[in-house]
Amino acid sequence: MKALVYHGPHKKSWEEKPIPVIQKPSDAIVRITKTTICGTDLHILKGDVPEVTDGRILGHEGVGIVESVGDSVNNFKKGDHVLISCITSCGKCYYCKQGMYSHCEDGGWILGHLVDGTQAEFVRIPHADTSLYHIPKESDEDALVMLSDILPTGYECGVLNGKISPGSSVAIVGAGPIGLAALLTAQFFAPGTIIMIDPDDNRLGVARKFGATDTVNNKKEDPVKSTLAITENRGVDTAIEAVGIPETFELCESIVGPGGTIANIGVHGKSVELHLETLWSKNITITTRLVDTVTTPLLLKSVQSKKLDSKKLITHHFELSDIMNAYDVFGNAAKEKALKVILKA
Amino acid sequence: MKALVYHGPHKKSWEEKPIPVIQKPSDAIVRITKTTICGTDLHILKGDVPEVTDGRILGHEGVGIVESVGDSVNNFKKGDHVLISCITSCGKCYYCKQGMYSHCEDGGWILGHLVDGTQAEFVRIPHADTSLYHIPKESDEDALVMLSDILPTGYECGVLNGKISPGSSVAIVGAGPIGLAALLTAQFFAPGTIIMIDPDDNRLGVARKFGATDTVNNKKEDPVKSTLAITENRGVDTAIEAVGIPETFELCESIVGPGGTIANIGVHGKSVELHLETLWSKNITITTRLVDTVTTPLLLKSVQSKKLDSKKLITHHFELSDIMNAYDVFGNAAKEKALKVILKA
Amino acid sequence: MKALVYHGPHKKSWEEKPIPVIQKPSDAIVRITKTTICGTDLHILKGDVPEVTDGRILGHEGVGIVESVGDSVNNFKKGDHVLISCITSCGKCYYCKQGMYSHCEDGGWILGHLVDGTQAEFVRIPHADTSLYHIPKESDEDALVMLSDILPTGYECGVLNGKISPGSSVAIVGAGPIGLAALLTAQFFAPGTIIMIDPDDNRLGVARKFGATDTVNNKKEDPVKSTLAITENRGVDTAIEAVGIPETFELCESIVGPGGTIANIGVHGKSVELHLETLWSKNITITTRLVDTVTTPLLLKSVQSKKLDSKKLITHHFELSDIMNAYDVFGNAAKEKALKVILKA
Amino acid sequence: MKALVYHGPHKKSWEEKPIPVIQKPSDAIVRITKTTICGTDLHILKGDVPEVTDGRILGHEGVGIVESVGDSVNNFKKGDHVLISCITSCGKCYYCKQGMYSHCEDGGWILGHLVDGTQAEFVRIPHADTSLYHIPKESDEDALVMLSDILPTGYECGVLNGKISPGSSVAIVGAGPIGLAALLTAQFFAPGTIIMIDPDDNRLGVARKFGATDTVNNKKEDPVKSTLAITENRGVDTAIEAVGIPETFELCESIVGPGGTIANIGVHGKSVELHLETLWSKNITITTRLVDTVTTPLLLKSVQSKKLDSKKLITHHFELSDIMNAYDVFGNAAKEKALKVILKA
Repeated sequence: MKALVYHGPHKKSWEEKPIPVIQKPSDAIVRITKTTICGTDLHILKGDVPEVTDGRILGHEGVGIVESVGDSVNNFKKGDHVLISCITSCGKCYYCKQGMYSHCEDGGWILGHLVDGTQAEFVRIPHADTSLYHIPKESDEDALVMLSDILPTGYECGVLNGKISPGSSVAIVGAGPIGLAALLTAQFFAPGTIIMIDPDDNRLGVARKFGATDTVNNKKEDPVKSTLAITENRGVDTAIEAVGIPETFELCESIVGPGGTIANIGVHGKSVELHLETLWSKNITITTRLVDTVTTPLLLKSVQSKKLDSKKLITHHFELSDIMNAYDVFGNAAKEKALKVILKA
Repeated sequence: MKALVYHGPHKKSWEEKPIPVIQKPSDAIVRITKTTICGTDLHILKGDVPEVTDGRILGHEGVGIVESVGDSVNNFKKGDHVLISCITSCGKCYYCKQGMYSHCEDGGWILGHLVDGTQAEFVRIPHADTSLYHIPKESDEDALVMLSDILPTGYECGVLNGKISPGSSVAIVGAGPIGLAALLTAQFFAPGTIIMIDPDDNRLGVARKFGATDTVNNKKEDPVKSTLAITENRGVDTAIEAVGIPETFELCESIVGPGGTIANIGVHGKSVELHLETLWSKNITITTRLVDTVTTPLLLKSVQSKKLDSKKLITHHFELSDIMNAYDVFGNAAKEKALKVILKA
Repeated sequence: MKALVYHGPHKKSWEEKPIPVIQKPSDAIVRITKTTICGTDLHILKGDVPEVTDGRILGHEGVGIVESVGDSVNNFKKGDHVLISCITSCGKCYYCKQGMYSHCEDGGWILGHLVDGTQAEFVRIPHADTSLYHIPKESDEDALVMLSDILPTGYECGVLNGKISPGSSVAIVGAGPIGLAALLTAQFFAPGTIIMIDPDDNRLGVARKFGATDTVNNKKEDPVKSTLAITENRGVDTAIEAVGIPETFELCESIVGPGGTIANIGVHGKSVELHLETLWSKNITITTRLVDTVTTPLLLKSVQSKKLDSKKLITHHFELSDIMNAYDVFGNAAKEKALKVILKA
Repeated sequence: MKALVYHGPHKKSWEEKPIPVIQKPSDAIVRITKTTICGTDLHILKGDVPEVTDGRILGHEGVGIVESVGDSVNNFKKGDHVLISCITSCGKCYYCKQGMYSHCEDGGWILGHLVDGTQAEFVRIPHADTSLYHIPKESDEDALVMLSDILPTGYECGVLNGKISPGSSVAIVGAGPIGLAALLTAQFFAPGTIIMIDPDDNRLGVARKFGATDTVNNKKEDPVKSTLAITENRGVDTAIEAVGIPETFELCESIVGPGGTIANIGVHGKSVELHLETLWSKNITITTRLVDTVTTPLLLKSVQSKKLDSKKLITHHFELSDIMNAYDVFGNAAKEKALKVILKA
């Protein structure tokens, strides 16, 4: 089969690899029909994720058709149409039993990381019973690819951890795909105000179309001043960090109001300064989280019941065989006005 | 001034009464600009609420302008535009400190019940600082009259107690004004399915316009069978009782799924049969509640931010002086296709 | 092997049965070292549980040693010392993923009910990975047998569902083993008042020794009056029903205070009268639950750290081969002053 | 009357001041019977709290007898025996209505800070109805002085924010009075493990007597290594910071396990380094809080029902007139083995 293979920093190729086979009784082999590229894949290609070794097939998102299953798989059979979760969960360990699949002792984020991933014609899915989801009949595959990672990430790490509630005020710092995914799912809880903060006017325009009530261009105006003005000088109830650098996290520290929450989504490469000298008495909460994908079933229902239009995040379509070009476009997201791309096998 | 006065079962009149005066330092006098009639007022007129005595001015909803305030009132002054809560709360007692204003030891539901109410040109509001709310500039008074009672009741007793959540399934039994108020506010939490159950096709049509995904006419079809069919035979996550009779409560018992919640809003005159012989092992929750109006601030924000169109509930408009006719229309709600009426002073 | 076998209402025998074998890759065979008898077993013997058929080995509690495991069992191996949960959970279905193991689509309460149980020398445990628990070294087996069913039942259905919190007031109606299990675990949350209500003075004495702050003999005094007197006329924050008959449930309705919770543990054979005509406005919550045993890991830690002395519930010891006598003693609990019995294989 | 008066950094005196009088209708004047000194008072005397101006009477804790009340005070009258909360709350503002009294728009921490305090023979208490608490008859005044500040602080900021639960693991960094107050109240939730970390062996000994299951002297051993060893290498579920310097906060970052919580109690004078490069994916929560004293009623009940022995924190007794000496002892806490001192008027 063909697959997108990592060969060390800045090196990848679309090349021939053996079709994967069942290794454990809980495995399934899935034929990929649609997949996508994640910002994390770009990080890997920069060499930022040293656990990924030469020869690894990348990708942790996608939908497909079950080709075969191991002996102990009960929930799936050959021919089933499935959504692949970016998080593999055994369902049996200390963390899985608490719904913290991200820390599964025999899983977590392993696809396209510690085992071969989904940017290929076939993929082996460990712990298939608890890591795949049935796709409802007549679903739109493109919409569902967005449920492998980006939407549960925005929803769990940003919206749920941020305790967004009806009438509350929210600021999202970063209007990239993940910030926009948080924006879409934040609206499940009918907040009164959603402020999107980003330096790119194009993305702010997208945010307004996606439901932001206010936008702040932090290259052109003081985001703290603007946010306080919008919130009667109280600061926001929820500040969502969707970038992953010290400046944006510290911006969240400055705009969160007493009793509020900073929900971190960003993948951070270095430490940040936490201003406890002012925050110690502000009754705030800060959360971090690697997505657990425990909300995948409800996101599936929300797509089905048209409460969530996840396809909005898709800007480009490619054939899977054209993935090298897709990486180029996705890697120049600002210039290409790209959010998420779909790769069709 | 003129007021609508109760004179025992089935007797009321629009008559002259003295303008109320400040009795305690925490009182305010409010000149009513808009008020409405509640189903509870009809119950009082039937003689079902014996605590209401001859000579009582009815009404517990409305907006108006502050005329004067007592010495210890800090949050309001003459000329302020205010929303009146149907629940009076002292803010200082055992229950108020827990946010259970409905059980305030010096308040609760007293307007138009134990003290004179709002169907009058003026009303005295005890504990004004904690029982009135500032109205945002340029608000629509009609929309806000719906926030005195019916919307917080539907929201607190039905939606919040019912723990509605994104993607979940909800059935509302009873498409009267209170069931429809629950329907409007249920959508704050983006449930996947909202089934409205009622014997009146006109009201079911209104429910569909208000956001119900499914409707069941329980005079024409078996509501248990229909609800199970809609919910993959699981039953609903939340069943909201919005009528107040044994049949509808027992219907909720039959349609709630394992792990689900029955949230009672209805005012019940007699006991109901609780089928613990089947429910004991179904992991369900049943809740009751007299509205606390703790959510009035967020409902105000939701109206302001256009997440809640509370005016949808209003079908008829009258002059306050025409209140005797308004009672006739509201008392024949089915025939008149009436939901809520607005009375303009 | 020898086993206690049900042969229809009022008929049981200690007889020879074949040693169970692995039937599915997720099974384990456990050699029983200690087991016990549950009130439910007495119900079965009365013929109250028609799903139990002639020839069924009874029992759903116990500890033992793993004899063999199926191919897909990862967490356990031959020789492991294990606690058996009364609830079998697959860990993969709609309900298990929500932590509602009681409603597992391929499990739930099946041991000694729909499949052969633990009152035998060996037992087959389906879904072993998610239905067994490792026993810490040097644990007291007797103490741990109490964690198969009675302690998680008292804790989950009574204490957790009852939302007991520091300083709060609790009444437990019924001082049998399950009411006493709720009493022991209620103290995890340091309530200010725990009132035990029962007609048996001996059991009330036990309750006082186990930590009840007040006891009420409802054969000798009016339990409503006494409970209100203890709670400054407010009623209790939590009323736990631990009997399973209409009278005791209705007593809970009378003693719960505004904002309080009735947590039902009792297994009910008929419906009860729910007094919504008074309760509709009291802001109460009623819960039902079949134990999920999701708290078994924390109960294990609590026994280990000596926060929970589960052995207190044990009054009698027998050899497993003497189980017919043990049933006689347990079946005459009041006369024998029996709570739980231990059967040693 | 006599009072302890601040005269700028490092200057205080016990001097004559006028007896306070009612200034607003919601005020009460309380004659102090017992008070104490807080670590915050030492900070003020170092000049760390510039809002405190020359001439201010210090102190924000105490019990006493009501001397007189303003016209709108309903809950208290002359002669009532009362506990003074360190937090003044109006009960009417945006924050008070959410139970966040610490941020009361007309209160918060003002006693001995922005208005005259309790280290005096009399004190004026603004918003008396919502800032004083009735003392149960026959209570021990010494025990209750501990409920003005230190116990609600340890409980709300450490224990409740830290989400301590039965069987969970807790580390408390800092065995000073506030860390010990957290230790005492942590036991309301029956955690399985409570590790106290401090460099002072005497205080660690006290911690063991107060209920710590493990102690770590971080001057003598690596606290990270020791904590991981105690928690099966998982890290703690809750890490409570009870010192207020970067080193101790960063220690909490190193010992909290996946899914865990860092609850900050310490008053910090500078920022700390937050290691998001490792924590971003660990699903942790960090909280800060200025005590709200919303839990004072339940702490009162807990003292009354003997679930909480708050007197344990008291090591020294003085006459109020001997307060200059009391400050010397309390200011040399380590040498004097002092925790809290009681000053009797």
